[in-house]
Amino acid sequence: MRSSEPSSANQRSARAFAELLSGYEVEPGTILKPTRMLEPGERPGLVEVKDIAFHSICAHHFLPFFGQVDLCYEPGDRILGLGKLPRLVDAYARRFQIQEDLVRDVAREMMESGRARGVRVRSRAQHLCMCGRGPSSANAITHAEFALGSLSDD
Amino acid sequence: MRSSEPSSANQRSARAFAELLSGYEVEPGTILKPTRMLEPGERPGLVEVKDIAFHSICAHHFLPFFGQVDLCYEPGDRILGLGKLPRLVDAYARRFQIQEDLVRDVAREMMESGRARGVRVRSRAQHLCMCGRGPSSANAITHAEFALGSLSDD
Amino acid sequence: MRSSEPSSANQRSARAFAELLSGYEVEPGTILKPTRMLEPGERPGLVEVKDIAFHSICAHHFLPFFGQVDLCYEPGDRILGLGKLPRLVDAYARRFQIQEDLVRDVAREMMESGRARGVRVRSRAQHLCMCGRGPSSANAITHAEFALGSLSDD
Amino acid sequence: MRSSEPSSANQRSARAFAELLSGYEVEPGTILKPTRMLEPGERPGLVEVKDIAFHSICAHHFLPFFGQVDLCYEPGDRILGLGKLPRLVDAYARRFQIQEDLVRDVAREMMESGRARGVRVRSRAQHLCMCGRGPSSANAITHAEFALGSLSDD
Amino acid sequence: MRSSEPSSANQRSARAFAELLSGYEVEPGTILKPTRMLEPGERPGLVEVKDIAFHSICAHHFLPFFGQVDLCYEPGDRILGLGKLPRLVDAYARRFQIQEDLVRDVAREMMESGRARGVRVRSRAQHLCMCGRGPSSANAITHAEFALGSLSDD
Amino acid sequence: MRSSEPSSANQRSARAFAELLSGYEVEPGTILKPTRMLEPGERPGLVEVKDIAFHSICAHHFLPFFGQVDLCYEPGDRILGLGKLPRLVDAYARRFQIQEDLVRDVAREMMESGRARGVRVRSRAQHLCMCGRGPSSANAITHAEFALGSLSDD
Amino acid sequence: MRSSEPSSANQRSARAFAELLSGYEVEPGTILKPTRMLEPGERPGLVEVKDIAFHSICAHHFLPFFGQVDLCYEPGDRILGLGKLPRLVDAYARRFQIQEDLVRDVAREMMESGRARGVRVRSRAQHLCMCGRGPSSANAITHAEFALGSLSDD
Amino acid sequence: MRSSEPSSANQRSARAFAELLSGYEVEPGTILKPTRMLEPGERPGLVEVKDIAFHSICAHHFLPFFGQVDLCYEPGDRILGLGKLPRLVDAYARRFQIQEDLVRDVAREMMESGRARGVRVRSRAQHLCMCGRGPSSANAITHAEFALGSLSDD
Amino acid sequence: MRSSEPSSANQRSARAFAELLSGYEVEPGTILKPTRMLEPGERPGLVEVKDIAFHSICAHHFLPFFGQVDLCYEPGDRILGLGKLPRLVDAYARRFQIQEDLVRDVAREMMESGRARGVRVRSRAQHLCMCGRGPSSANAITHAEFALGSLSDD
Amino acid sequence: MRSSEPSSANQRSARAFAELLSGYEVEPGTILKPTRMLEPGERPGLVEVKDIAFHSICAHHFLPFFGQVDLCYEPGDRILGLGKLPRLVDAYARRFQIQEDLVRDVAREMMESGRARGVRVRSRAQHLCMCGRGPSSANAITHAEFALGSLSDD
Repeated sequence: MRSSEPSSANQRSARAFAELLSGYEVEPGTILKPTRMLEPGERPGLVEVKDIAFHSICAHHFLPFFGQVDLCYEPGDRILGLGKLPRLVDAYARRFQIQEDLVRDVAREMMESGRARGVRVRSRAQHLCMCGRGPSSANAITHAEFALGSLSDD
Repeated sequence: MRSSEPSSANQRSARAFAELLSGYEVEPGTILKPTRMLEPGERPGLVEVKDIAFHSICAHHFLPFFGQVDLCYEPGDRILGLGKLPRLVDAYARRFQIQEDLVRDVAREMMESGRARGVRVRSRAQHLCMCGRGPSSANAITHAEFALGSLSDD
Repeated sequence: MRSSEPSSANQRSARAFAELLSGYEVEPGTILKPTRMLEPGERPGLVEVKDIAFHSICAHHFLPFFGQVDLCYEPGDRILGLGKLPRLVDAYARRFQIQEDLVRDVAREMMESGRARGVRVRSRAQHLCMCGRGPSSANAITHAEFALGSLSDD
Repeated sequence: MRSSEPSSANQRSARAFAELLSGYEVEPGTILKPTRMLEPGERPGLVEVKDIAFHSICAHHFLPFFGQVDLCYEPGDRILGLGKLPRLVDAYARRFQIQEDLVRDVAREMMESGRARGVRVRSRAQHLCMCGRGPSSANAITHAEFALGSLSDD
Repeated sequence: MRSSEPSSANQRSARAFAELLSGYEVEPGTILKPTRMLEPGERPGLVEVKDIAFHSICAHHFLPFFGQVDLCYEPGDRILGLGKLPRLVDAYARRFQIQEDLVRDVAREMMESGRARGVRVRSRAQHLCMCGRGPSSANAITHAEFALGSLSDD
Repeated sequence: MRSSEPSSANQRSARAFAELLSGYEVEPGTILKPTRMLEPGERPGLVEVKDIAFHSICAHHFLPFFGQVDLCYEPGDRILGLGKLPRLVDAYARRFQIQEDLVRDVAREMMESGRARGVRVRSRAQHLCMCGRGPSSANAITHAEFALGSLSDD
Repeated sequence: MRSSEPSSANQRSARAFAELLSGYEVEPGTILKPTRMLEPGERPGLVEVKDIAFHSICAHHFLPFFGQVDLCYEPGDRILGLGKLPRLVDAYARRFQIQEDLVRDVAREMMESGRARGVRVRSRAQHLCMCGRGPSSANAITHAEFALGSLSDD
Repeated sequence: MRSSEPSSANQRSARAFAELLSGYEVEPGTILKPTRMLEPGERPGLVEVKDIAFHSICAHHFLPFFGQVDLCYEPGDRILGLGKLPRLVDAYARRFQIQEDLVRDVAREMMESGRARGVRVRSRAQHLCMCGRGPSSANAITHAEFALGSLSDD
Repeated sequence: MRSSEPSSANQRSARAFAELLSGYEVEPGTILKPTRMLEPGERPGLVEVKDIAFHSICAHHFLPFFGQVDLCYEPGDRILGLGKLPRLVDAYARRFQIQEDLVRDVAREMMESGRARGVRVRSRAQHLCMCGRGPSSANAITHAEFALGSLSDD
Repeated sequence: MRSSEPSSANQRSARAFAELLSGYEVEPGTILKPTRMLEPGERPGLVEVKDIAFHSICAHHFLPFFGQVDLCYEPGDRILGLGKLPRLVDAYARRFQIQEDLVRDVAREMMESGRARGVRVRSRAQHLCMCGRGPSSANAITHAEFALGSLSDD
């Protein structure tokens, strides 16, 4: 009935999924680059990149979930290139993930290769495995957060 | 690394996809039911159900697209049960679809088994095959509409 | 388990339903009263009362539906008391109704006992028989309208 | 006057009410499932599902009340499947309830079968027994909340 | 019980009502003043002052009603001082009025002493005689409009 | 000039004012009713009814003031019927009042006949004695609050 | 070129400026009046009038600045007439002022002639000397605040 | 009382007013420059620059008025440099003006030195001579528009 | 003073500009692909992709301008792949452009290689050459549109 | 193809960049001027200028970034001229900058030449080097802040 041949649909689908899972081809530890090193005794203020969009695939149902991350850090010995922060989120999101691990993975990387004094990662997302299933979850938004170092409450 | 076993993930995924494609198990022509028949010469006003949520799978990339339908009709010989209209949208959305055909399929069914004098179907949707791919389409919303009978401009 | 005795719950329920159906005790034809009669040749502008709240019971499922009516009229030989318009809506809503008939009933009464030159009644409502049943109708809003006389397109 | 026969209206009504009370057929203690168990010493961040819609029937007047729940928890020994949280709310809402008990019932279940370290349940609702009765309550929104464990102030 | 003596309350009340009815002390025909006369053949564009607040007393219940007027005119032989337009609305509002006559009175004055080619007066108001009386009118907003000359549809 | 006869206007006005002052006919101490008594040791969460509309008459100028009350309480030995809270506000508002006393009166009654552990009453209102008098108060909104028991800061 | 004669423009301008500077003719210490005195031991809640509009003339550039004041106080031995608070703001604003002194002057007067236990004055304003001068200040809003007594942090 | 000396305040004021009246030093006919000439037979679409801020001084009261202009044109034989359009508005606004003439002056210049096929100029403004004077005009916004050529209705 | 070496800044800048001008490497005529061909006599409804983001470089000042495009078309002999439409906009935007030509270029390509019956392209943008230069253009938004075929007014 | 000659485009571009880098020609230490000195023991409240627009050039990619600064200070021995604060932001923004240093530079200057007791500088910005590069950063907003003295948390 439809003129689009299944074979090329399969190819298009394969390409689309490959893109959604392209995070596995990135080594997250190599992404973060300093804009400049701090001077001795320098104590800069907080830096936050808000509304970083992400698309991921739920490791539980193989269905997409997507939303935004707000990523805040207090620099340790360097100020990080701002454009690298969305790339870091992307590298961990474009995998089979669960939202609770995504925020943890990003936070840990900021501490390790980003040498942050503290980091707080907040996310909000829609999960297709939830939205399409019943009236109680049609508009539900899931929030998950993770904090380490000077931005953790502990 | 993750403790969830792949086999049950496959099962969960299968169930989720089955639900997203459950429209094939519905015969759309049997959904619409009259609330009451019109009296001779009666000419009721327009009826519109707005913000009917839908979830569908793109026939082109096998990725979800989802959004809302506004479904407006002018009754022909009967007033239709309001709760049936979202079910009709659901029956055509939970298939491999393209958005341009979804609005056409719903409109035709309203004319045929719903005996409408006229119908106008408007939809707006996000397509995961678009959102995750580049900055130019990250926020793009696609609109498609279809009208027949007294609500068509022709 | 709960301390509230069933018998008084029945009484409370009976009182609540009696109120939701109190429209049957009102004679709608006696509600509308003139504020003043028009002078010969006088042609006043349009008058509209917007966002008149109503609560009704669906004649089809015996479940509540509720929303707002916007009631616009062009005076015929009299300017009607503004406070009477919400009462007219109330008298027709507090019955077993369907939304499509509610707007028709109000419009006809405005023409007959209100002597309007024209009337347009628009309504929007949530139907509990729809909202609680599936993801596609969880946020759906139903619109129904009816116009007569100088405000009808015919 | 209306063509819809009372008998089938009764059947439709019975089906609708059966759905609104279907929570009694669910065993809430079996709903929550882990996505994965925590590793020893792991301390994840807060997880919150916001805007979970619910529909319930007031145990006091047998009239519907409905609204949203925000359900936040701190994982104990497991991360719970996100899609299960709206189901838990549904299971306790689709009963004869009062809003103050709904948030308590959900919170306790999260602690018991969900093994949470802490939980906070917030709800907001419209009650039809209030909205339709007088001008002072026409727009009133009722909030009820309940917290246990690490998210309680005590 | 309250320490404020009734006599001074009466005086305060008298002063407040005198202000609400001070429109009777103004001669509306003397308010409008030209900013400049048009040159021969000059045809200026539309001028509209929106959101002119007014407070009035309902001639029917002696209770306040209040809201906003949008006053639009096409100049005839003069451009009117903008600050005079709210004064004109004030002069007709601070009387015993009904909303339908307020817009008519203002429109006629714009044509007569303001020499307008056309005028359109739109108003929206809350009426205390309505808001406090029942749930259906608690949020109702009443709109009345009047147009003459080149801005009338006739 | 107007066709409405003064005598019936006086009657309408009398009826309208009688309604605005009908709080004197209510004994506030009899309004609050328990939905259920608490079990020994039970400690429920906070309950708040927001946006309870009220209309009152300023004891100082005999002009209306009106707005919303947010009424929050922590239950003492009983959970109160939600629908009774707007009635309590109504009973104290439909009198000659000042806004500062209205919140105090409602709060005290919640502690006394409602046996609350704590209560917080917030209100916001427009006062006609202010709005119509000068540009500085045209949009001013007055807030008054009162707290007792466990919800007081003292 | 323009038909409006300069002399009357000067007169209009003089009147307008006289009004903008009319605060000098008011003795601020005489404005505040009690609605009622507190009873011994009575401790009322906070009272706040928000969005009091003001217009002033910058003492530095002789150009207007204008905005809103939120004026909050905790009563000392009396509850003040609400309508007097905007008048107090007006009396100090309609002078050559700077925004930082306006909030201080109002706060001090509330403590002195208003006998408040505490006061907090917040203001936000647009300054014409800023808005028209460069792209960086075109939308800038200036906030100034002042607190004394129980509402001061000190 | 204030430490700022009057003489320098006069100088600051003089500079500020000089800036507000700097339009007289600009020759509006020299502002508009083409980005490129149209090719023969080329018919481009509409171009509109919205929300151009302006500050002016009322020729009637010598008080500021300010707001936004939306400037739309259909190119005649050239596409105009976009950045020149706000400069044109500025050149006519920074004079003693009335809002009705400002839109006319800008429109005529677009036709003459800009060679437009048609032009439509819409403006909205607050006038300090209105805002500070009475409650009815405290929030009033004045709109004035002017159209010529292919964008005029004539 | 800053630790980042100029040479690598030049490289980063070169890469960034190369990306902003990457449209020259794309052949726009090869982008549009059909999802399916229309059946004989089939007449589908309008399709519109709204809020397609674009970034471009002003051919006049070599400074960026950026905004959104709404691209609407009526299919001719084929329904186009939705994801291709943002790519088409991208191909023409990532060049030295002026906004008036961008909408024209996209519209023409939709007619030619997209075989549309009609097309309408609307754009809105901020131009850095305008925003940073003076108060009148700080918030100005430029709109340009172009229509061809069945969606043109001609 | 385009009629604008490259040479004049180069000149226009040079002028535009010169303006974007004009901060180097300003000596920031000379900008801040007192409105008045504080009296001995005087302790004024906080002063904040919000939404100061800025445009800057990223020192890392030579591409523009732009946004708003909120600048709050507690006066030390003087109240600063409000109009100077946006100029100070401008002087540091119109350079090759990174957002983290911009807020630091402004804060330090407020302490030094402005003699503030404390200062807090918050900024939010869009970076063209980020927006145009991928879907994850298309809407990302970067926040950077810096505080010193009495407004620092340390």
